[in-house]
Amino acid sequence: PQVAIVVHGGAWAIPDAKVKGNVAGVQSAALVGYKTLLQGGSALDAVEAAVRSLEDDPIFDAGVGSVLNENGEVEMDAIIMDGETLNFGAISCVQNIKNPVTLARHLLNHPDHNMLTAAGANKFAAEVGISTVPRDVLVTQDAIEEWEEFKKYDGAVKNLFNESGSLKAIPQDRHDTVGAVAIDSYGRLAAATSTGGITAKMAGRVGDSPLVGCGAYADSNVGAVSTTGHGESLMKSMMAHRVVVDVEGGKSMQASVERNLRQMKERVGGCGGVIGIDKNGNVAHGFNTERMSWASVTTDGGVEVGIEPGEVLKAGPA
Amino acid sequence: PQVAIVVHGGAWAIPDAKVKGNVAGVQSAALVGYKTLLQGGSALDAVEAAVRSLEDDPIFDAGVGSVLNENGEVEMDAIIMDGETLNFGAISCVQNIKNPVTLARHLLNHPDHNMLTAAGANKFAAEVGISTVPRDVLVTQDAIEEWEEFKKYDGAVKNLFNESGSLKAIPQDRHDTVGAVAIDSYGRLAAATSTGGITAKMAGRVGDSPLVGCGAYADSNVGAVSTTGHGESLMKSMMAHRVVVDVEGGKSMQASVERNLRQMKERVGGCGGVIGIDKNGNVAHGFNTERMSWASVTTDGGVEVGIEPGEVLKAGPA
Repeated sequence: PQVAIVVHGGAWAIPDAKVKGNVAGVQSAALVGYKTLLQGGSALDAVEAAVRSLEDDPIFDAGVGSVLNENGEVEMDAIIMDGETLNFGAISCVQNIKNPVTLARHLLNHPDHNMLTAAGANKFAAEVGISTVPRDVLVTQDAIEEWEEFKKYDGAVKNLFNESGSLKAIPQDRHDTVGAVAIDSYGRLAAATSTGGITAKMAGRVGDSPLVGCGAYADSNVGAVSTTGHGESLMKSMMAHRVVVDVEGGKSMQASVERNLRQMKERVGGCGGVIGIDKNGNVAHGFNTERMSWASVTTDGGVEVGIEPGEVLKAGPA
Repeated sequence: PQVAIVVHGGAWAIPDAKVKGNVAGVQSAALVGYKTLLQGGSALDAVEAAVRSLEDDPIFDAGVGSVLNENGEVEMDAIIMDGETLNFGAISCVQNIKNPVTLARHLLNHPDHNMLTAAGANKFAAEVGISTVPRDVLVTQDAIEEWEEFKKYDGAVKNLFNESGSLKAIPQDRHDTVGAVAIDSYGRLAAATSTGGITAKMAGRVGDSPLVGCGAYADSNVGAVSTTGHGESLMKSMMAHRVVVDVEGGKSMQASVERNLRQMKERVGGCGGVIGIDKNGNVAHGFNTERMSWASVTTDGGVEVGIEPGEVLKAGPA
């Protein structure tokens, strides 16, 4: 089969001021992954390279640019999955690591364990020679401002509640995530997802991103998927696995993505976005949030990007 | 519908000396859960009560009796899921808590978060008023001896490897898990799973048990499942969710359990056990390990228990 890759930079109400940077970031990451594939890299190599590119870009909430938890700390989650073997490596609640997806990849072929959390994940990082970075390397001015605004708003809401008894909803758009899915020239599929979570999350909160079948799933016999959006809804719906199961049952990847986003909203009320590639190299993407930044290089070598609903911008050949 | 409950005490090579205690423990837990249902408790109440009973029984690897990690520490995982709303509470890598399933239940209806890990999980426990217990309350003599034997064996294996170049496999049966699935008089389904993991696991290792769709899944429109066995294989296979998806597709719960255990062994090589109840109250259980302790009270009020393959012992009415 021909190679293909699709990446996302998060499905949420991306503000106008961040549109340009989001589009540039996903396009660049897709091209990094595509180049990896053209140079003979595996699907795993490609999704790792693409997600590293997104983690290194401060506009995205993963690696550098991760949002801050309730204590002002950075706690990150990541997963990478090999569709050939169903092996995966998953890391939750890790601190001071620049590229959590690479740490997850080190765990991928561990004989005993697939998932490590918190201090244990950091201990493993040291064992495999991944050096730590100071918190400040990961924290952007944007992340600090969003955290301070939330803290202020959170206090305001609590005061309002105390006075009137009616509680205004806390804004839900404190989250995004990055991810990538690829197929290589041997028809192998892989998926990866990485995130800093949501602003002011509780210490130790684990979202959907590092959970197999929720934030990502890959089976080279069927298809591979990475998800983004309201983490708790994606978890309840088992979004990544459910899309793959639908494709296994004979639906197209695109129809499965759209159907499951619709069903998630109906059943548990949450919105999100999904990218996927089936075993034949068909690329799919969908979201029911306000925006999702995504980019792909399809099997014909054409580059596509988008951020608005229903929009597909052709960016010419890779 | 009539109420029903099924529980398991782990699928592995349960040694002869532990057979009697295992059977007594699962039977007792099933009756505790059944009594909860008869007294008007919800399916959630019943699975929590049954799993608490298993956590409190030192013969099982969950709560009191949890095995020790590489550092001799106890790190526990648990999940509880409500089939009505698909809400769940999941805890990974928590220390010094006597009943992790109850901590998970406190998280079940949290507005923002479904899963907490490590120190964040312990912080949440303190916030909801769950007091800690000293490590020694959780640690049994059996757990210490298993850990010491493993440490000795681990060292011996490493020496052997260094001398001859051939590595003997480390025994895989260092794990079990407990779980429960119930249907209440309103037809509501719930599932819960709890574990201390595997002896000498790396610090921070997260197994299948607390992962939604792997260790447990519940959907009142379809069925509910709890799993046990080789955690990493159960995760790769998305065992709990896959069984529920098969039932949704029209298969019986028992056929789905058996089919997916077979498929897991073929695809990723691991063995395990599954218990489940469908939306009509049909109880199922299966395993392809040497033994699995399980007990159920079916909708006709009859008690069944078993531990050997193909064995169903009638224990009379509840």
